[in-house]
Amino acid sequence: MKIKSLGEDIRAVVWDNKHNILKILDQRLLPFKIEIVVARTVQEVCFAITDMQVRGAPTIGITAAYGLCLSVKHLQDLQSSRTKKKKLDDDFQALLATRPTAIDLKNCLQEIYHVALDTDFSLETCISRSHQIGETIIDECKQLGEHGNELIDDGDRILTHCNAGAVATLDYGTALAPIRIAHENGKKVFVYVDETRPRLQGSKITAWELYEAGINHSIIVDSAAAFLMSKGKINLIIVGADRCLIDGTITNKIGTHALSLAANYYTVPFYSAFPWSTIDYDTKDKTDIEIELRDPDEIKTIKTDKRELKIANPNSDAYNPAFDITPPELITGYITPKGVLNQQELVNEIIQREKKSRGKN
Amino acid sequence: MKIKSLGEDIRAVVWDNKHNILKILDQRLLPFKIEIVVARTVQEVCFAITDMQVRGAPTIGITAAYGLCLSVKHLQDLQSSRTKKKKLDDDFQALLATRPTAIDLKNCLQEIYHVALDTDFSLETCISRSHQIGETIIDECKQLGEHGNELIDDGDRILTHCNAGAVATLDYGTALAPIRIAHENGKKVFVYVDETRPRLQGSKITAWELYEAGINHSIIVDSAAAFLMSKGKINLIIVGADRCLIDGTITNKIGTHALSLAANYYTVPFYSAFPWSTIDYDTKDKTDIEIELRDPDEIKTIKTDKRELKIANPNSDAYNPAFDITPPELITGYITPKGVLNQQELVNEIIQREKKSRGKN
Repeated sequence: MKIKSLGEDIRAVVWDNKHNILKILDQRLLPFKIEIVVARTVQEVCFAITDMQVRGAPTIGITAAYGLCLSVKHLQDLQSSRTKKKKLDDDFQALLATRPTAIDLKNCLQEIYHVALDTDFSLETCISRSHQIGETIIDECKQLGEHGNELIDDGDRILTHCNAGAVATLDYGTALAPIRIAHENGKKVFVYVDETRPRLQGSKITAWELYEAGINHSIIVDSAAAFLMSKGKINLIIVGADRCLIDGTITNKIGTHALSLAANYYTVPFYSAFPWSTIDYDTKDKTDIEIELRDPDEIKTIKTDKRELKIANPNSDAYNPAFDITPPELITGYITPKGVLNQQELVNEIIQREKKSRGKN
Repeated sequence: MKIKSLGEDIRAVVWDNKHNILKILDQRLLPFKIEIVVARTVQEVCFAITDMQVRGAPTIGITAAYGLCLSVKHLQDLQSSRTKKKKLDDDFQALLATRPTAIDLKNCLQEIYHVALDTDFSLETCISRSHQIGETIIDECKQLGEHGNELIDDGDRILTHCNAGAVATLDYGTALAPIRIAHENGKKVFVYVDETRPRLQGSKITAWELYEAGINHSIIVDSAAAFLMSKGKINLIIVGADRCLIDGTITNKIGTHALSLAANYYTVPFYSAFPWSTIDYDTKDKTDIEIELRDPDEIKTIKTDKRELKIANPNSDAYNPAFDITPPELITGYITPKGVLNQQELVNEIIQREKKSRGKN
């Protein structure tokens, strides 16, 4: 995305082809500082994902893919194929364990893992396939943005939750892509930005992206969204997804489910936007989705730009699930690279994609 | 309420009979500091309410009543009754304008205003009537707590929002009164505490009150409540109210309405608890309720114990309604000093009370 104040483009993660290292925009510091950190090892990539220097399901996926490239890079010093595979397996598992909920992580990792094994650990091929994954994410986000744009009318007041924007997806974003494209097409839109506790990706990152794009917006506390719907102030909701099951059940940032319930009550159209890397082909039952429980201190302490403030009774505990689950009956439609789909169309598309993928393997 | 760590009782506001001044527990600093500020003038009371040194509908009411006592105290220097009435009217209006939504403010102010006029500005009578109002609030909170306790079973997991506790009501609390009494009666309860953005009265004050009372609890972000309901982790919701219309529509802290929608979907019993000072006898139409819009900076900046931290994109705006509105069809029942009432019983009780009050005037 273009940063007006810097006069340049930035991207959440960039592979440095010259030094074979990964450059990461430290999203923990946004919007107060634009700081690039370098990951040279799998361990550093694991930290970047766990500590949320990178975040957003597709960005986590591509970061993990490049993380496995770093693994393959370091394998070159090892002798036997068996030792190499053992180390690759360990690194795969370490990267997979960083965050349990966003499925893009697993999907992208598996792709590079198989490339590594199939090419006798060719670093060049792993890197080039990772670049392809990144380009695919960007292309698909642009495509879904074009489709989602058709849902948006001039004058719409759109609610979004968390950050499903450029830095969550390398470019355009998922939930933000339709809004960006509507704006580029001259439609006047107004975006209500859920601040998204506890990590405030909405007030920090989404608000910043919208500001940089020149799109009118206002931050609200997450719990105000239902009230705004009751007052007719919101006529469209678009969120991203960290995982979409084959029946259209989505897992997304905590608070998404509450929005879907209010949207259902007030018949506000509720859409989830994602590229194909977000499909979970394996989990059949939503109770099998692992919801990441994060540190209670994320709720009890506010951290910004390396400063922090205690904001809760010190002797109290906090319970901090990072995601929640929204069933398809509460979702109006899915904004995908193939178009805006209803549940049945999405299911059919997923079945087609699964068949095609099985044919390939 | 008893503060274990201090070994003493504290109260949100205490009238100092010796000096005729008002001592206010500065709730902005809780739970990090117990600091008492003194209000000697109407202006200082106005500031205390506006800046939320005092908060909670019943506490705001009694604070305003004592504020009008300070007005009457200063009237003693004036000569003519006309000048006195003019000054009293101005002070009444200033106090009334501090916060528009909590109706206890208006109810308590009107009571002392009429006492002042009826007694030729007798400070003694105004103070003694204010004491009575305070005692009534405490008694009614205890009564509603006893009634609400009957809704609570051993092992219940109860959600509450904002702080409807001891410091919001002088003692016991509204939403917290049934929980306190259940706990005193030996029932094991677990309380999920909505942190309550933007001012965090949940994570700061309610969590502290529960900790001091020895009641097990955990803080959650507001938007997690619906997810916890979907997982069956919450089987009862009790909130307070800042205003209850004669049809049972309640106005309460922003986020209450979102909870009521999730509770409705997952059939979790949803109760509002309040003393009679919270009834709004005048507003017939909920669209006439003035919802206080507070400073956007409350969302964009976190303040705690006089320190602060910016937590949002600096160039973005924020929209900050402090309350929302929940219609009776989403409310299971009302926990009142008269008992736990359904909508019709509440309406009947309000009609009776209105008739009685008209009879008196």
